[in-house]
Amino acid sequence: MTNCIHDHSRWGAGDQIGAAHLLTPEVTLKGLRNVRDGEILDLSHVIENGAPRMAPNQSPYHMQIGPTSEGSIRRRRAIGAKNDAGTNLERIEMTTHVGTHIDALGHCSIGDRLYGGYSAAETVDDFGLIHLGIEHMPPMVTRGVLIDVSRADGGDFLEAGRGVTVADLEKALAQSKVSIQPGDVVCINTGWGRFFMTDNARYLSGEPGIDAEAARWLTAQDCVAIAADNMALEVLPGTDHPEIVMPVHQHCLAEAGVHIIENLVMDELVEREIFTFCFMLSALKFKGATGCPVRPIAII
Amino acid sequence: MTNCIHDHSRWGAGDQIGAAHLLTPEVTLKGLRNVRDGEILDLSHVIENGAPRMAPNQSPYHMQIGPTSEGSIRRRRAIGAKNDAGTNLERIEMTTHVGTHIDALGHCSIGDRLYGGYSAAETVDDFGLIHLGIEHMPPMVTRGVLIDVSRADGGDFLEAGRGVTVADLEKALAQSKVSIQPGDVVCINTGWGRFFMTDNARYLSGEPGIDAEAARWLTAQDCVAIAADNMALEVLPGTDHPEIVMPVHQHCLAEAGVHIIENLVMDELVEREIFTFCFMLSALKFKGATGCPVRPIAII
Amino acid sequence: MTNCIHDHSRWGAGDQIGAAHLLTPEVTLKGLRNVRDGEILDLSHVIENGAPRMAPNQSPYHMQIGPTSEGSIRRRRAIGAKNDAGTNLERIEMTTHVGTHIDALGHCSIGDRLYGGYSAAETVDDFGLIHLGIEHMPPMVTRGVLIDVSRADGGDFLEAGRGVTVADLEKALAQSKVSIQPGDVVCINTGWGRFFMTDNARYLSGEPGIDAEAARWLTAQDCVAIAADNMALEVLPGTDHPEIVMPVHQHCLAEAGVHIIENLVMDELVEREIFTFCFMLSALKFKGATGCPVRPIAII
Amino acid sequence: MTNCIHDHSRWGAGDQIGAAHLLTPEVTLKGLRNVRDGEILDLSHVIENGAPRMAPNQSPYHMQIGPTSEGSIRRRRAIGAKNDAGTNLERIEMTTHVGTHIDALGHCSIGDRLYGGYSAAETVDDFGLIHLGIEHMPPMVTRGVLIDVSRADGGDFLEAGRGVTVADLEKALAQSKVSIQPGDVVCINTGWGRFFMTDNARYLSGEPGIDAEAARWLTAQDCVAIAADNMALEVLPGTDHPEIVMPVHQHCLAEAGVHIIENLVMDELVEREIFTFCFMLSALKFKGATGCPVRPIAII
Repeated sequence: MTNCIHDHSRWGAGDQIGAAHLLTPEVTLKGLRNVRDGEILDLSHVIENGAPRMAPNQSPYHMQIGPTSEGSIRRRRAIGAKNDAGTNLERIEMTTHVGTHIDALGHCSIGDRLYGGYSAAETVDDFGLIHLGIEHMPPMVTRGVLIDVSRADGGDFLEAGRGVTVADLEKALAQSKVSIQPGDVVCINTGWGRFFMTDNARYLSGEPGIDAEAARWLTAQDCVAIAADNMALEVLPGTDHPEIVMPVHQHCLAEAGVHIIENLVMDELVEREIFTFCFMLSALKFKGATGCPVRPIAII
Repeated sequence: MTNCIHDHSRWGAGDQIGAAHLLTPEVTLKGLRNVRDGEILDLSHVIENGAPRMAPNQSPYHMQIGPTSEGSIRRRRAIGAKNDAGTNLERIEMTTHVGTHIDALGHCSIGDRLYGGYSAAETVDDFGLIHLGIEHMPPMVTRGVLIDVSRADGGDFLEAGRGVTVADLEKALAQSKVSIQPGDVVCINTGWGRFFMTDNARYLSGEPGIDAEAARWLTAQDCVAIAADNMALEVLPGTDHPEIVMPVHQHCLAEAGVHIIENLVMDELVEREIFTFCFMLSALKFKGATGCPVRPIAII
Repeated sequence: MTNCIHDHSRWGAGDQIGAAHLLTPEVTLKGLRNVRDGEILDLSHVIENGAPRMAPNQSPYHMQIGPTSEGSIRRRRAIGAKNDAGTNLERIEMTTHVGTHIDALGHCSIGDRLYGGYSAAETVDDFGLIHLGIEHMPPMVTRGVLIDVSRADGGDFLEAGRGVTVADLEKALAQSKVSIQPGDVVCINTGWGRFFMTDNARYLSGEPGIDAEAARWLTAQDCVAIAADNMALEVLPGTDHPEIVMPVHQHCLAEAGVHIIENLVMDELVEREIFTFCFMLSALKFKGATGCPVRPIAII
Repeated sequence: MTNCIHDHSRWGAGDQIGAAHLLTPEVTLKGLRNVRDGEILDLSHVIENGAPRMAPNQSPYHMQIGPTSEGSIRRRRAIGAKNDAGTNLERIEMTTHVGTHIDALGHCSIGDRLYGGYSAAETVDDFGLIHLGIEHMPPMVTRGVLIDVSRADGGDFLEAGRGVTVADLEKALAQSKVSIQPGDVVCINTGWGRFFMTDNARYLSGEPGIDAEAARWLTAQDCVAIAADNMALEVLPGTDHPEIVMPVHQHCLAEAGVHIIENLVMDELVEREIFTFCFMLSALKFKGATGCPVRPIAII
């Protein structure tokens, strides 16, 4: 950890955004230069009741409609309204780690230590993180890079438990003739996303994903975020399971200050072999939240 | 209603996205041409416990942290983990109409009739809208136009109950030498947003906003969405209150298929007199939801 | 339905409590006369995350702790407190039909018609039932009668889909030498309760339960409530499935005004062959709710 | 604390129910001997949206209807049902400390120490208390004693901030010629309950209640629970505010193992001058919960 290029001192003690400091206007302009046709590709899943979740930490998503047109019209008539304006709303109960989502830097700790040297005991307050909540994350408009490790591996998808190594990443990048640049969002396609809502039991049974060394290799290249088409970015069960749990989360979030994006949808990028694109994502500013469901897009 | 340029037949029976059909690649490219420096301005509020809401339809927002680093480390140690990976999450309970948010076309009805000719009785299902839910709304990357009616009126903000008329809009547009073009997102600044979370009682007591004719004038110019720095876009209490309730919502959503964005933050645009910009917004695909909290941005 | 002894006219139009009118002080005293030793038997399950539910109508139960001792002590120290008073609370999200629970009369309709002749369209308001909510149900202190149909059948439990008939009830009552009296709460043991939280998949796959004629036979004897050790009191799949859905619910609640209690725990009554006892239940007055989790007890 | 009759060693280390050990069959029979007429008095408030709460610890109560008769009939018709069985349910989001409720012994700590010597850090788990949750509390059927300190004071209600002392309790008990016996539930009427839902701002602005010495005097007489018609049982602001916060909670729950019941409704007892009665309460077994809304009753 001490050799990490993104160690806590890089952006100063008490920093709250980590590698997002790399999101300069120049990086934004560079990202936008990837736009040619103005076509927008959606990189997110629909979020609905029954969405897959890693229990118990990721708790159930539940949505119900109410109030309704019918009820609101009845209430408004009772106070004299004549234009029958019906209003429909709903109630959503969720964790922010549902569907396609981004992890806030405060999502993960190494013991009591959070990114920036914050103490978890003093930061994780009952009604939200005092520091490192998702509201601090700036919007991302930058270059996205697709690393299709599934294709490089020769199949439609990698199996659960298959660790993605530095060599795998290098091979896929070489095939697509792309190299990572500072400020990029790296999008790793394992093919595992095909089981999201089509076979949740399998989707949750484990997953292919990067190993800890691959994570360090990626953050060392100054990407601002790493995304994948699975629940947790990292290989599950992990390489040293159960002694070592979630090492990629610990490194990316708590050490390197690099955001993690999960359950990303790259199908169209993969099919059309689009390896670089303009990537956009803006997370809701839920104060003190540990993440946020997002709808990132690629503009090509 | 029958003379409305955006009537239900314009995009065909059963259409689900209305004016969002105008969001073509060309419009996206045109929107992006407003970017010069690559600077990103955030147009949204922080969402937190105690966020203002129009009761009872807009129900409370509540967020609590849990599980925590401490608990997850304890549970993981119990199964043999040695790297003390702590995970923080939270539970959010909300309606989608909290903070800066967008209304889905199915949010509002005229009696039983929703946009596209759908029947509310057959569309408003217990677990989400069967049609016209927010998941259908495409991401918006287009030109944004600021109409600063407060400035044009000569003050810092308009008072609650002050209707914004077509003349007000025309005056403000003339001052800034901008005209609305098809595909634009129109952003109306009344100055009322200064009371969001600083004086919620006042913020909710009423608001300045557009009247029904102004709404029709705007939708007739083929904007894809109308945004404002207040709770409801339209003047409250309404011009014909209580006989006529929420006529602007009825027109924009149920007739014209034009999305409404509320509680937008335009302070920096206003201060720096930026009247046109690249506007970006991508709503989460909560299946069947009647809206979505959003974090729109301006790129300049 | 027209021959039902408990038809809507029995207690007058607009009645809200149905057979609970039978809960007179005399019936209460009679119930208390079943107490000999003062021993209390608990008739309810523990309610916890993962509780069985009939999706989608019965939505998930979710509970999380927060605020915590740790957080509240930190906040109180910050305002000068020195006695380190820690306060733990939690957040529960649920339907009232979780665990051992009682159904309010307004839980079930026959088309638009609810008990007492109320229209569902006019009664089922967005924020609660306008009539027939659980807050109207008086506390029950009366005689409880155990009908152990499983034992009468010769086994530990009946199989899913096994309808319990009038003959089954009569046989079990004869064996225990008990007859139903006005004001009784009838408790039917099928043995199916053994799968609650031990094998939820099986518990929810169907269930043994009374058929529609048995329900009519029971309500005709003026019981105030019918309880069972399963999810729905009635046999599932029903006798005429799928043409006829939930006929026992329709009869008991919407016609007869007899409350239904589900997921009751009768193990100790069964084992000790206690066929009559003092039954006590008081449902929370959640305004407009369609039921309530309860903790009924037997005093013997 | 060391002189407390109910110290942690009384019931043995690791005890989970405290003074509820006093609820023997004999105490139950003694409680039932207070029944003469079989009349039941309800001692609880209706729970509804907008219920008073001590923010932020007590979080909002929110209830919405759904699914509905209309939706469920539509879904059932789609699978072939012909009897139009409509089912209404709701969604409740709450803390257990809403309306008339009981505090679990694990609700309150003195630093890291909970009742029974448990460590809060090891007991307060993310998904519920590992020890001392409300599911451990046995049902209460015992004698209730009304102490009407408001009447003894000569008025309709005591003012907020008025501490109720041992002398106040003794005076009221002397006037009603009642003395506390082991196993009793003591019900203290301050008159403050009149502001529940009639003037919530006032109800929450402070309250009359017992001081720490009065609490110790009560627990020393072996009552099993202390109830009051206010939010917190104890005087607010407290005698030594802000240095000493919630000392009555600390003593009753964490030291003495005596349950606290809040927002009790004693109006009819007070009006009819019923000073002893059979008290019944059975809290739901929400696993690991820190309390439970309850509907206690008096049988007379």
